[in-house]
Amino acid sequence: MCHRWDEFPIVVSRITWQLHRAKDLGGSGDVLVKMGFVGICSSDIHFWCEGKFGDWVVKKPIVLGHEAAGTVCKVSCGVNHLKAGDKVVIEPIVPRENDEYVRIGRYNLSPTCFMAGFPPDDGTMCRYYVHKANYCYKLPECVCLEEGALVEPLCVALHACQRGRVKVGQKVFICGAGPIGLLTLLVCKAIGVTLIVVCVCSFHEIASIPKVCCPVLGYGIPAEVSFAAVKPGGMVVLVGMGLATANVPVTHATVREVDIRGTFRYTNTWHTAIALLASKKVDVKPLITHRFGLEQAQEGFECVKKGAGIKVVINCEQQQQQCPSLCPQNQCGQQQSQCQTRQCPQHSFF
Amino acid sequence: MCHRWDEFPIVVSRITWQLHRAKDLGGSGDVLVKMGFVGICSSDIHFWCEGKFGDWVVKKPIVLGHEAAGTVCKVSCGVNHLKAGDKVVIEPIVPRENDEYVRIGRYNLSPTCFMAGFPPDDGTMCRYYVHKANYCYKLPECVCLEEGALVEPLCVALHACQRGRVKVGQKVFICGAGPIGLLTLLVCKAIGVTLIVVCVCSFHEIASIPKVCCPVLGYGIPAEVSFAAVKPGGMVVLVGMGLATANVPVTHATVREVDIRGTFRYTNTWHTAIALLASKKVDVKPLITHRFGLEQAQEGFECVKKGAGIKVVINCEQQQQQCPSLCPQNQCGQQQSQCQTRQCPQHSFF
Amino acid sequence: MCHRWDEFPIVVSRITWQLHRAKDLGGSGDVLVKMGFVGICSSDIHFWCEGKFGDWVVKKPIVLGHEAAGTVCKVSCGVNHLKAGDKVVIEPIVPRENDEYVRIGRYNLSPTCFMAGFPPDDGTMCRYYVHKANYCYKLPECVCLEEGALVEPLCVALHACQRGRVKVGQKVFICGAGPIGLLTLLVCKAIGVTLIVVCVCSFHEIASIPKVCCPVLGYGIPAEVSFAAVKPGGMVVLVGMGLATANVPVTHATVREVDIRGTFRYTNTWHTAIALLASKKVDVKPLITHRFGLEQAQEGFECVKKGAGIKVVINCEQQQQQCPSLCPQNQCGQQQSQCQTRQCPQHSFF
Amino acid sequence: MCHRWDEFPIVVSRITWQLHRAKDLGGSGDVLVKMGFVGICSSDIHFWCEGKFGDWVVKKPIVLGHEAAGTVCKVSCGVNHLKAGDKVVIEPIVPRENDEYVRIGRYNLSPTCFMAGFPPDDGTMCRYYVHKANYCYKLPECVCLEEGALVEPLCVALHACQRGRVKVGQKVFICGAGPIGLLTLLVCKAIGVTLIVVCVCSFHEIASIPKVCCPVLGYGIPAEVSFAAVKPGGMVVLVGMGLATANVPVTHATVREVDIRGTFRYTNTWHTAIALLASKKVDVKPLITHRFGLEQAQEGFECVKKGAGIKVVINCEQQQQQCPSLCPQNQCGQQQSQCQTRQCPQHSFF
Repeated sequence: MCHRWDEFPIVVSRITWQLHRAKDLGGSGDVLVKMGFVGICSSDIHFWCEGKFGDWVVKKPIVLGHEAAGTVCKVSCGVNHLKAGDKVVIEPIVPRENDEYVRIGRYNLSPTCFMAGFPPDDGTMCRYYVHKANYCYKLPECVCLEEGALVEPLCVALHACQRGRVKVGQKVFICGAGPIGLLTLLVCKAIGVTLIVVCVCSFHEIASIPKVCCPVLGYGIPAEVSFAAVKPGGMVVLVGMGLATANVPVTHATVREVDIRGTFRYTNTWHTAIALLASKKVDVKPLITHRFGLEQAQEGFECVKKGAGIKVVINCEQQQQQCPSLCPQNQCGQQQSQCQTRQCPQHSFF
Repeated sequence: MCHRWDEFPIVVSRITWQLHRAKDLGGSGDVLVKMGFVGICSSDIHFWCEGKFGDWVVKKPIVLGHEAAGTVCKVSCGVNHLKAGDKVVIEPIVPRENDEYVRIGRYNLSPTCFMAGFPPDDGTMCRYYVHKANYCYKLPECVCLEEGALVEPLCVALHACQRGRVKVGQKVFICGAGPIGLLTLLVCKAIGVTLIVVCVCSFHEIASIPKVCCPVLGYGIPAEVSFAAVKPGGMVVLVGMGLATANVPVTHATVREVDIRGTFRYTNTWHTAIALLASKKVDVKPLITHRFGLEQAQEGFECVKKGAGIKVVINCEQQQQQCPSLCPQNQCGQQQSQCQTRQCPQHSFF
Repeated sequence: MCHRWDEFPIVVSRITWQLHRAKDLGGSGDVLVKMGFVGICSSDIHFWCEGKFGDWVVKKPIVLGHEAAGTVCKVSCGVNHLKAGDKVVIEPIVPRENDEYVRIGRYNLSPTCFMAGFPPDDGTMCRYYVHKANYCYKLPECVCLEEGALVEPLCVALHACQRGRVKVGQKVFICGAGPIGLLTLLVCKAIGVTLIVVCVCSFHEIASIPKVCCPVLGYGIPAEVSFAAVKPGGMVVLVGMGLATANVPVTHATVREVDIRGTFRYTNTWHTAIALLASKKVDVKPLITHRFGLEQAQEGFECVKKGAGIKVVINCEQQQQQCPSLCPQNQCGQQQSQCQTRQCPQHSFF
Repeated sequence: MCHRWDEFPIVVSRITWQLHRAKDLGGSGDVLVKMGFVGICSSDIHFWCEGKFGDWVVKKPIVLGHEAAGTVCKVSCGVNHLKAGDKVVIEPIVPRENDEYVRIGRYNLSPTCFMAGFPPDDGTMCRYYVHKANYCYKLPECVCLEEGALVEPLCVALHACQRGRVKVGQKVFICGAGPIGLLTLLVCKAIGVTLIVVCVCSFHEIASIPKVCCPVLGYGIPAEVSFAAVKPGGMVVLVGMGLATANVPVTHATVREVDIRGTFRYTNTWHTAIALLASKKVDVKPLITHRFGLEQAQEGFECVKKGAGIKVVINCEQQQQQCPSLCPQNQCGQQQSQCQTRQCPQHSFF
């Protein structure tokens, strides 16, 4: 049984984040996932560097990671749609209460929902992770785990386009060419938008100011640009978070009936996102510019921080090729998992 | 025939507004209206005092007035839904082109539309006025001309509620208790809103800053209040115009998916507004606090300017009770105005 | 403690329905309700007379009743919004799975949901009843339990109006003047519909054929009427169930873009329905034409079956009028039930 | 000047259709179009064979043709967006009145609108045709006139998808693989539908029974199939016209809240359709299986009638291959038509 594993803490100066021991798969409806790839989001950088992001404050060591795909190890009783061996993507939001938002299908607004990798809830950047099976979605054969790690940001882009009522034949202006901006571009193409203009900023700028998007967004100085770019009756969709406030040309927006819509994460977008990948209508692979092993996660964070790429993903699987030289004489801690101890020094069953 | 009348200029220091000679009823589809009551809007005050409102600038003498009801005098050929003697309200917007906005039913956004009483288009605060019959709506017997003068602001409130998707059972917070705020209150009641909170400001404040409304509005300092008052997934509807820009808490709005919607005038609300009056679901009469004759229009403007009431209306009809003593011999029936012009010196300027 | 009660079976020829002993309040999130009033729906009549309704078939004795209000006796741990003594209405639908319909806020379509009083799930027509607290809504002081029993059919009407996009100022044609037709009428009035035409059929017809409603409905012969009554771009909303199929003038509907919408029960309408009662915007009391005690429930069913009234409700509380003979000295008024507990041995287990 | 042309009648037994002399380009806002390609719709076949289609009855000779593209010859004063030489597609609907449907942007429902090629309004299957410039849309260089002739049916498909709220990631079932079914398929692909099932019938069946489409359709026997194919909360979109009535499983549709939507032609879809062709997101060329000259139009109608192809288009331009015998000395290449005008007396009136 692979339901026990090792503690794998990474401690970084300023704030600490750690890949800790997951709890056993106990609850009904749970699934244990052997993590595959986990993307790094700019929010992760905020947590890492500043210990906070918006109203979320890191108060104790936390496992980050909410852009995640892995392989099912074990399912608890009552779980019928998944079985061991299935590749899955993980929706990090899990409602905890059947409140008014959950009831109307907007569970992303539920104030008590669980969100993997946002304090105080631990995330997925670790070897094994337990999640509600209802919020794990099976990947088809033709979609790999690396692509799976981009389903979460793809859902952000999808949700933005849906909230923005982006439709076939429209013209869309995207401010920001970071991962979310580019994924929004891909979604727009997939749904028949016939003219897309992307306002390119450096990734560093994107990481430090709110990402915004389709039909247009508004942040910092570009806010005026975005409002000016929208025609009467149009829509400004705000994606991501940046400065707390913006100087919005409200009168101009009012007399032209420009709608402004905030978007927060996603609801009910996961099957669509997976279908877009499976049907090759969206290809996210080119966005992955850097890959790091879990042991090198800090390098990955540094890479994102300095804006040296588009999407950085962490490979959470045991790095097999490096194992022999690194730990032939393995003394890797208490439970270097049963396997290591018993069967293969070089960690072969991971 | 009552299609000729006199010039009636009123010149006020700073800017000039005048009740000028209307052009003859010539075009097909036109209707000549003997004006009854015309309300004064805060935008009129801006034009009067500052010579501009938003992007509209008074560059030559203009007849103000866009909240108007009157009686049909004459209809041109091709007009079948109206006849002389009908009481009508006048929708001041008339599209001039069949552009993309007109085609999708949002003619209020058509950049070239005619707008009575907004420069450079003359308005209704005069004795007689020519308008497109398609934009004149017959009032039922049970609705008087005074009430008719409030249909236009009632349409603003209706449009705000429709754009705001205000629905039965919702809770609505209205910032501003000027005419638009109060009319929004009345509309909310009529459509089954079960909890309404009105944030009362002095009318003076309302007149000088943007009116805003249901679910909430944001202007000047209260903007933060309005956003704070809206729950996640809610809506802030901006009504009217005020400061060019506002410091909007965008991140807060974004993560809670609060939508912000501007509203500009109205589209396709007139039949509904009239039906609400006719069915007594909305009673606008109590809002009318002051009435002035056309000759005393300036007093009416002063009254609005100093915030001394809710709704001030101008009675554009000839004050007939004074006539008998002045021209007892008058028996000219239809040619009343011409007769007056000729026979009653003291009325000669009509 | 009042968590024990009596079995109270009612057996009727053809099919049996019984008011059985409820299971103890065990599950977390449950609430035990002492039933007050329960309305009889035409679907109940179908179950009683034919043993089936649509695809629902009575296969074993069942407690009917899904239009229910009562008083909370006891709440399980974790229930914070209710306490003993609260008057509540019971939403009979309770989702069992977090499936795709529940996730998008349309839990009424969830194929596995619990529905009180629809086979195989027992309903509320009994002395005590256990339900999920999340689906029990507190009634304000000003709404009595009798009115509470009409919240469920009021929700049907509300849902029909919402699905039908019924809006202020519209004209609505309602086919059928049974309880749902009349409640739809009341909702239409409350939300500002300014012209309502009700097509009156005998209640007997309503009870035996599908109730249909606003903008219009279609069943049996009136289907053609309903479609003919709707203008181009209009909506036909189907409420209730009747003949399995109808001969719909599809070409006529198509070229006029008339939408046809089915409605099934309700979603997220309960707070609104209660608010409409509390605010007196809707008064359901006049619809209640007959009241029967639980012991006389069969008479109530006979009454509905023969169409002798509008709404028949069953008073599930212990019939106090029988008390005097049992405890003549009792004059305790409001504390009747406590008095019974103490003074009437035969009622002591309540 | 090419504003005069010949009468070109084609008389067929049973009913007569003729390509008659167009009136001069007189009205303001008109444009004279030298017709290029005009597609044959199954409604044309109904007019030709039966003299009627739905409620439209041919009472006098009529020029058919409403799927049309051509080249602008001349524009009247006031037309700024077109000039001679522009390739255009023609939207055959032109509202005649500013009625309630036109005002809300649903001009396809306006009962008095002009519809080219539907009695009593003459259509486009002729050498020259006069139309309102506002309803002529310029084709970009990269879209040819043959493709232009398919913009109209593409708009039908687009409108069906928009009315059906077809969205990215959905599953769509299309009944009918005639031109509209296939164009709906292409639109679905262009807007990101990830699973499309087409129910193939012979074209003959499609031509003689209502075309129906996305999410599903219902006609004749397949109606039950279409309803059965839609999941709860889904949508059946009816496209085209067939049998006057259908036996709809209303109760089944009701309890599953399946919406049924009729679609009639299109509104505001033309820019989108052209953009889809220009961007190569939709390629309609493969659908064109047969081409006939205007003189051979009857053969084209026979071809459609017997179901021998997908899309049959009529080339309305003067057949140049006949010219050599008429004007052998002609070698003018690109200026063929001008050459004809000058050199071939028998063609001089073109």
